[in-house]
Amino acid sequence: MSTVGELNTSNRILMGPGPSDVHPRVLKAMATPLVGHLDPEFVTIMDEIKTMVQATFQTQNHLTFVVSAPGSAGMETCLVNLLEPGDEAVICIHGVFGGRMTDIAERCGATVTKVEAPWGEPIDPQQVKEALAKTKPKLVAIVHAETSTGVLQPLEEISEMVHEAGALLVVDAVTSYCGADLRVDEWGIDAIYSGTQKCLSAPPGLSPVSFSDRALAVLDNRKTKVQSWFLDLSLVKNYWAGAKRAYHHTAPVSAMYALREAYRLVLEEGLENRFARHKRNHELLKKGLESLGFEFLVDEAYRLPMLNAVKVPAGVDEGAIRKRLLEEYNIEVGGGLGKFAGKIWRVGLMGESSTPNHVNVLLSALRDLM
Amino acid sequence: MSTVGELNTSNRILMGPGPSDVHPRVLKAMATPLVGHLDPEFVTIMDEIKTMVQATFQTQNHLTFVVSAPGSAGMETCLVNLLEPGDEAVICIHGVFGGRMTDIAERCGATVTKVEAPWGEPIDPQQVKEALAKTKPKLVAIVHAETSTGVLQPLEEISEMVHEAGALLVVDAVTSYCGADLRVDEWGIDAIYSGTQKCLSAPPGLSPVSFSDRALAVLDNRKTKVQSWFLDLSLVKNYWAGAKRAYHHTAPVSAMYALREAYRLVLEEGLENRFARHKRNHELLKKGLESLGFEFLVDEAYRLPMLNAVKVPAGVDEGAIRKRLLEEYNIEVGGGLGKFAGKIWRVGLMGESSTPNHVNVLLSALRDLM
Repeated sequence: MSTVGELNTSNRILMGPGPSDVHPRVLKAMATPLVGHLDPEFVTIMDEIKTMVQATFQTQNHLTFVVSAPGSAGMETCLVNLLEPGDEAVICIHGVFGGRMTDIAERCGATVTKVEAPWGEPIDPQQVKEALAKTKPKLVAIVHAETSTGVLQPLEEISEMVHEAGALLVVDAVTSYCGADLRVDEWGIDAIYSGTQKCLSAPPGLSPVSFSDRALAVLDNRKTKVQSWFLDLSLVKNYWAGAKRAYHHTAPVSAMYALREAYRLVLEEGLENRFARHKRNHELLKKGLESLGFEFLVDEAYRLPMLNAVKVPAGVDEGAIRKRLLEEYNIEVGGGLGKFAGKIWRVGLMGESSTPNHVNVLLSALRDLM
Repeated sequence: MSTVGELNTSNRILMGPGPSDVHPRVLKAMATPLVGHLDPEFVTIMDEIKTMVQATFQTQNHLTFVVSAPGSAGMETCLVNLLEPGDEAVICIHGVFGGRMTDIAERCGATVTKVEAPWGEPIDPQQVKEALAKTKPKLVAIVHAETSTGVLQPLEEISEMVHEAGALLVVDAVTSYCGADLRVDEWGIDAIYSGTQKCLSAPPGLSPVSFSDRALAVLDNRKTKVQSWFLDLSLVKNYWAGAKRAYHHTAPVSAMYALREAYRLVLEEGLENRFARHKRNHELLKKGLESLGFEFLVDEAYRLPMLNAVKVPAGVDEGAIRKRLLEEYNIEVGGGLGKFAGKIWRVGLMGESSTPNHVNVLLSALRDLM
């Protein structure tokens, strides 16, 4: 084989759908020499991370921790633990990630009733109500911030309906987490997962999750083993929350160092300030992009501040411009996913990438290129 | 919540069952600012990593890549993709990890025939032969280096039997990989997984895997969907090896930077030199520990060089000494797992932790303490 040379990457400005830019303090923390994954010092670090996951999810849930794998594995953790063969589930689909949840739920042997909205629109609570009248689901799953379309889904009204029907509410908060208000306890969310590489601005690879007492009761009453050993909460919880930490897998020590520092930065800023910053920079970007002829895909009332889905102006070769942005300006913006491939851009202003400077360099580059 | 302070860990010397010490070049690479996970530069990095996984597994297998989760998820990847409900599997158990494979295989709906050896001994090929005569398994799974007992399992004779019986050979090489000879192609291994935090000396969190063409044929002929979406090779392979990289999950960019650098260090040293170094330092440790009254658990013929399972001398409070080693000397050694808890130590000399200095500081500290 040919020899692989020294790592030599370009100095990208990350304004796609994630990963976002990572603060130097997080990179520095990650480069700290490792302690063992069962070292008392690491156990303390896990405890500290847990309190910060609780604070950022705005929850008191005891079973709150970080899955040692990316957000998709967090999604799978929620579904494989709560669903058993023969269960019914209602899954809301208004983009790629609702579709993915359906795929996973079906792999669990569940019967899925789909509630669908056109991509770019939120789910209408009335549709959920109708689905709940027709089925007897164990859970209803919905995406809070659809990364593929840029829609922010209101949850409170749906949550009430779901609980009235005696079901659990499962929420995908990969993109909204730490960038927009998200109240796990107040909104009655029973199982939630997120990622680290969006508004939290840690490197990708981990998935913060949390489960309510209602969800715990469902877990405790399972008749079958969880189909995944790696994601089985009855095992994982003894590692994260047991009185004596029982070895399950080897935790990704360095990634946890990075995550810990990213959480510290979030809490130093304060959640409210952070949400306001994401909103402020979104407004700045909106003004600039509209002046360049871009149109937002999503109605203003449901628009995500951290992920701006915009239609590229007619006559502009979107692929060519994105390539030049990357190659000439080191700026990454995202293309469309699924049915929006080639049709929209997804401009991320997430975490450390949500600054006026990010907005300004992108707008200036676009003015040069278009 | 109380405020979480700056990360402030002790400067540990890692001589347990992993993680092992990480080279400064790896830490430095990991702290590199991120590029996007679909950036052409990251695609190149994935390709480079793939060639280095192939080189270190000594394989030409096309489906060779890195699972974005720890070794246990690599184990699960191999089993959930190859097994379907109703399949038969023979699983060899001579420690904790054979037991874990059985648990996972049963969660796949497979009927498992167990071949067991006393903990601390290897599996006798004759036992495998007998199991193959009685069942018609789709695969035989075995641990190459049992991290819980310190046994190195010879594989070649068993591999021949397995293939004569028309089954696939699945191998756990978490602890042997990059520290002892391991020839995937020459030994006829059909599916293999490892970890990064042992003799490869990268941080924990990823799992290199490889699949033979025989295994690929089995994958292509599945009648049911793989029960895990996250680990489904029919999806993951399009991300790692597809002509056009299809988004599956967000790869852990920083962990991949670290892994890439760890592989470069392995290949700069050369596999043969690296294996010899692990053997040399094992001999040094052996002499010293024996002079202090420790006895090896495993017969010399089957002893792992990188993980030394030793019985603590009678009258020594093993827990107290390990605690003092950690607190006063910053040295981590591992205790026993499962039925060996409290009975043995597991002293790791893995990757960057396999040096004469590591051996010497441990022996000196033990002389002080015992």
